[in-house]
Amino acid sequence: MSSSTTRNLKMTSIAIATCYLATLCSAEKPLAPNAEQSDPATLGWMQGFPPPADKIIGQPDSNYFSFPKLRWTVCHLRELLPTKQVSRGLSAPSVLEYNLDPYIDSVSFYPLHSDQEITWQESLGLNYTDGMLVLHKGKVVYERYFGALSEDGKHAAMSMTKSMTGLLAEILVAEGVLDDQAKVETIVPELAQSAFGDATVRQVMDMTTGLKYSEDYSDPNADIWVYNAAANPLPKPADYVGPRSYYEFLQTVKKEGDHGEAFGYKTINTDVLAWIMAKTTGKDLTSLLSERIWRKIGAEQDAYTTVDSIGTPFAGGGLSAGLRDLGRIGQLMLNEGKLNGERIIPRKAIRSISKGGSKEAFAKAGYKDLAGGSYRGMWWVFHNDHKAYAARGVHGQTIYIDPTAEMVIVRFASHPHAKNAYIDPTSLPAYQAVAEYLLSK
Amino acid sequence: MSSSTTRNLKMTSIAIATCYLATLCSAEKPLAPNAEQSDPATLGWMQGFPPPADKIIGQPDSNYFSFPKLRWTVCHLRELLPTKQVSRGLSAPSVLEYNLDPYIDSVSFYPLHSDQEITWQESLGLNYTDGMLVLHKGKVVYERYFGALSEDGKHAAMSMTKSMTGLLAEILVAEGVLDDQAKVETIVPELAQSAFGDATVRQVMDMTTGLKYSEDYSDPNADIWVYNAAANPLPKPADYVGPRSYYEFLQTVKKEGDHGEAFGYKTINTDVLAWIMAKTTGKDLTSLLSERIWRKIGAEQDAYTTVDSIGTPFAGGGLSAGLRDLGRIGQLMLNEGKLNGERIIPRKAIRSISKGGSKEAFAKAGYKDLAGGSYRGMWWVFHNDHKAYAARGVHGQTIYIDPTAEMVIVRFASHPHAKNAYIDPTSLPAYQAVAEYLLSK
Repeated sequence: MSSSTTRNLKMTSIAIATCYLATLCSAEKPLAPNAEQSDPATLGWMQGFPPPADKIIGQPDSNYFSFPKLRWTVCHLRELLPTKQVSRGLSAPSVLEYNLDPYIDSVSFYPLHSDQEITWQESLGLNYTDGMLVLHKGKVVYERYFGALSEDGKHAAMSMTKSMTGLLAEILVAEGVLDDQAKVETIVPELAQSAFGDATVRQVMDMTTGLKYSEDYSDPNADIWVYNAAANPLPKPADYVGPRSYYEFLQTVKKEGDHGEAFGYKTINTDVLAWIMAKTTGKDLTSLLSERIWRKIGAEQDAYTTVDSIGTPFAGGGLSAGLRDLGRIGQLMLNEGKLNGERIIPRKAIRSISKGGSKEAFAKAGYKDLAGGSYRGMWWVFHNDHKAYAARGVHGQTIYIDPTAEMVIVRFASHPHAKNAYIDPTSLPAYQAVAEYLLSK
Repeated sequence: MSSSTTRNLKMTSIAIATCYLATLCSAEKPLAPNAEQSDPATLGWMQGFPPPADKIIGQPDSNYFSFPKLRWTVCHLRELLPTKQVSRGLSAPSVLEYNLDPYIDSVSFYPLHSDQEITWQESLGLNYTDGMLVLHKGKVVYERYFGALSEDGKHAAMSMTKSMTGLLAEILVAEGVLDDQAKVETIVPELAQSAFGDATVRQVMDMTTGLKYSEDYSDPNADIWVYNAAANPLPKPADYVGPRSYYEFLQTVKKEGDHGEAFGYKTINTDVLAWIMAKTTGKDLTSLLSERIWRKIGAEQDAYTTVDSIGTPFAGGGLSAGLRDLGRIGQLMLNEGKLNGERIIPRKAIRSISKGGSKEAFAKAGYKDLAGGSYRGMWWVFHNDHKAYAARGVHGQTIYIDPTAEMVIVRFASHPHAKNAYIDPTSLPAYQAVAEYLLSK
């Protein structure tokens, strides 16, 4: 399909399709009830048999990812959408050791751009935290659940899905299975005529592709809305004529600028990367996540991804997982690929991520609170004193790895704002403060 | 909504709604390719990135439960529909001991109405078996996987979901939490004006309610089509005016005949029973299955159910689970509520099922190959020499418990025919033959 056709279909798509991807990536909303007031149990979502009509969150209601409903939805995506399992296998979960530290709650810090000190405990509510896990030297020192999340529940990982996809790609590159200097068109011929065709796998992995693609949710002409309609796994309206899957949409993306020049955070890179890996290995994202990570870390829960209408997992943001299982993955990163003494991932793959990408390319994207950082293998690298790096997802999701403090933090959240720019000021300095506290112990 | 309104909406519903429940319960089809020819891998369903257009099984295609597609679909329902987790919890799975017996494959028997002897092994293909597990004296003596099923996969349990629901009800009755002599309307006031209002809980549990409700899929005027449209979790067409959930539909069902007279196998009884338990316990079917069974048996996999548009699990047929986990449940039944030495279910609950229900009421339903049997707590009781009883689901699903032979059989299958009347002739005598073989060892 040509780019102009795509554009012509855009408004039609907006009108006829339910806002699928938007629901997974969300738009900005004014700050509303606080964490306690917006607690799903307090608001009574989906309670009763049947729940009262105004307390139902379901598919006929396409606003299920609007705040405060999203506080329920982030823990219940599979009840609204078709999903595909990431199997943990059948063996016993690996044991997570505990060494809980009651003093972490009172660690205090100054939020970015603020001269008012707050405590770690206070920051949890401010960030609409659903789950918080801190590992130090491989042991759990802090663990809390709020909102709709419980220890045996799963939470939307949002764009942390990208980091899981990027980690798999780094593994395949380290093993020599995937050549990160290969042109995409040599692996996925279907993308030859698209912007991705002459990009290298590495440019896709580091999101330095030059793409004519807008992910601005506030713009009704943004390309994300066409992607949104294509991605929706529910039956399309009879008069729908747009792309009908991730793969179909990705073939329509046109080039803008040169590849390799600037970092541009565009979700579609990740879906291309998953396609590249599927063509290379014969396995889709859920199979690779299961084989390479979930089965190997002794995960205690299966995870799952959303899928499109032809069963393709949403690599850009479709994963839901348990808090402690992401903790196991964070620890695996911190240990440079070993867990419980066993090598699971080549050290080279982890080091490719932790050493970071091009700061110059990253600077062009203008992230103020992440100045001096980079993006590598779909992980965010801070290049700070502690050599910290992170997986990050909208509404406050993170796996934060601090090698210096031997600390891993996993946070699930359901902040009213999607953008982490609203959440970082009370998060990044909090992580640094706890890291320093743990270092001082 | 009145019955006449329901009827008027029926044809509209057929026209506008995708065949949701029909896909879960299916219609009769002519016998087609054999088990080997119809193997999902052989046919190439959902293989490739993307799969070829004619090999895609997805939501825009509402025939995903037609044969031979159903052979793939029975193992992938969650990829097509919203679903709700039945959590196994987070602990290690219980150990299943093995004592494999290579001679079972050559056990031979005469199929019902046939004078041609066949072997157990031959019967597996004839029955389009996807998974077969035989436990003897608590140990696995036989285990096979075919088609789209693997040991870490899940398979649609179809109407065996009813038996799981019935088992929960028997537990609550045995504990005194649920009074099986109470009128339904005293527990679910919403059903007071429906056929169910003046039925007892026990009549619902044993399906001896008198209901004006046809489940004949070959009749386009059958009530099942309205139920079908109501149950579909996907957004309803804009002009849809019928019931929008299980609960809404159940309230429209009218009485025909008297309660307590005759067995009538009608799926809606089970959805009423799950509603009764939800009102009684404050927990839906998936929560109860998790708390009372999956977490207690040391299940090795989570299970799941399909849900309607307001998140209600489909008690009549929505469960998907692992083969060995249903084996654990079968063993729990055989052991009268104990597993690995621990009491999990009151003996009274199991005995209520295993002793059977009214043979007189059952005889009126006219099941030729099950003559002399009964239906109790949503389990089929054969009243044969071995005191065998079973959970049964369309397309060949069964948990078959033979107390005399200390044998449990679990079979998942994807037979082209929905009705077990087509499958029993090569199954029931096979189970009896293996039971006799095991008894003779």
